[in-house]
Amino acid sequence: MTGLAGSERLLDDKAADLSPSVAARRACRTGTVTSTAGLANGFVQGNLVILPEKLAASFHRFCQLNPKPCPIIGMSDVGDPHIPSLGIDLDIRTDLPRYRVWHDGEVVEEPAEIMAHWRDDLVAFVIGCSFSFEEALMADDLPIRHIERKVRVPMYRTNIACRPAGPFAGPMVVSMRPFKPADAIRAVQITSRFPSVHGAPVHLGHPHSIGIADIARPDYGDPVPVEADEIPVFWACGVTPQAVIAAAKLPFAITHAPGLMLVTDLKNKQLAVL
Amino acid sequence: MTGLAGSERLLDDKAADLSPSVAARRACRTGTVTSTAGLANGFVQGNLVILPEKLAASFHRFCQLNPKPCPIIGMSDVGDPHIPSLGIDLDIRTDLPRYRVWHDGEVVEEPAEIMAHWRDDLVAFVIGCSFSFEEALMADDLPIRHIERKVRVPMYRTNIACRPAGPFAGPMVVSMRPFKPADAIRAVQITSRFPSVHGAPVHLGHPHSIGIADIARPDYGDPVPVEADEIPVFWACGVTPQAVIAAAKLPFAITHAPGLMLVTDLKNKQLAVL
Repeated sequence: MTGLAGSERLLDDKAADLSPSVAARRACRTGTVTSTAGLANGFVQGNLVILPEKLAASFHRFCQLNPKPCPIIGMSDVGDPHIPSLGIDLDIRTDLPRYRVWHDGEVVEEPAEIMAHWRDDLVAFVIGCSFSFEEALMADDLPIRHIERKVRVPMYRTNIACRPAGPFAGPMVVSMRPFKPADAIRAVQITSRFPSVHGAPVHLGHPHSIGIADIARPDYGDPVPVEADEIPVFWACGVTPQAVIAAAKLPFAITHAPGLMLVTDLKNKQLAVL
Repeated sequence: MTGLAGSERLLDDKAADLSPSVAARRACRTGTVTSTAGLANGFVQGNLVILPEKLAASFHRFCQLNPKPCPIIGMSDVGDPHIPSLGIDLDIRTDLPRYRVWHDGEVVEEPAEIMAHWRDDLVAFVIGCSFSFEEALMADDLPIRHIERKVRVPMYRTNIACRPAGPFAGPMVVSMRPFKPADAIRAVQITSRFPSVHGAPVHLGHPHSIGIADIARPDYGDPVPVEADEIPVFWACGVTPQAVIAAAKLPFAITHAPGLMLVTDLKNKQLAVL
């Protein structure tokens, strides 16, 4: 054990030389990170869904049918907790700050690591996250209300049905950002370049049309005001799988805890298709 | 004269072999075309502005400063009525169905040709037209209300000031098309590919914010309804130069008559930047 501890200390000593994404994952491993927003700027973060192999094929098909809420940016082999395409040293069991363990569609535990829950039949899916496109919007000087106010983005269950696959069915969840109309047009252009992190908005302007009764009462996250000269713009959201897991009352699943994502070694700018 | 008449008949006899754009210009020369909408589908049509050389440099700079309402797709040499880049046989004095002759900012005549008005100091500017992007929208199955209703697109003077150049100053004119929100997002994506024919919208959702008091009363063209689940989407419009010519009370100018454009040999699809 002394040798191992020595080797870990050696790695810590070299942390200053690490890529910001690797350093961020190591910080997340300690369980002390309370939000990954703003961590390792420039690097892609992802939503996590872990399922038993017998459900994984259906979920993979669900993602293929619903690429706007569920754009897959990486997945593991069966039983393998590593996803080298997202990070050579990445261990999906420890590298997120907090997880949600689901039984029968309910969250039963929110542990800081899932070593004890891991099984040889599990498959991990990493799904693109809006942090990537928000970086592109801010780089274009578009103001993002919930970031300015230091709260979580407001999210809503809609009446837009996902296309079902096996037990996976349910409503699309969307995130909302208010913009002045000219900025909304620019936001459509910018996010269209990033299809693997939800891409262009799915709706704007008429919340009632997509089943949102009260814009001031999001189903997830925090409310933000929409001013009279602004329009609410809605993007498909990576929380959709969690709504679907709950709706399907799946016997077992593990996800990330909202706002506490997987930091990958991919760069946001690599995701731009144009 | 017998020989010339014979040669013209020969050209007519070969009309069936002509490119649709050349055939359309020949039809426009006869002065019998009442609208160029739907003529020579697939080919670029343009707004026309003809000015004396001493004003042309200012107008050219005005267009450069205001590329969304005034994207130049072609211009003539001083005193030359031909624009071979838009059509080898094109004669700007005869090839539009109808013109407007402006004196001191007022329309004084709407002739079918301008042979008698042409001068050695005139410069012709051809400016991109929304017909091109409407073709792309329809190719994507987006419904266009004024085309369905067989009326002219509604156009409005806004409170968006053009950037001035010399005597050229005034409000941007916009055209409006109502869409369901998801179609509005798609329309932003599609028209973004066509910057030389006005490109992406300049506004959507809040007509009052851009100085439009009553969406049912356009300043040019015809009104169309905006349904409760739709949002009005506004594009910069090639009628802007005519509003500016009127506002500047220019001593002399010639333009096309609204809806009666120049048909060019350029293809709409050639204008896509992506």
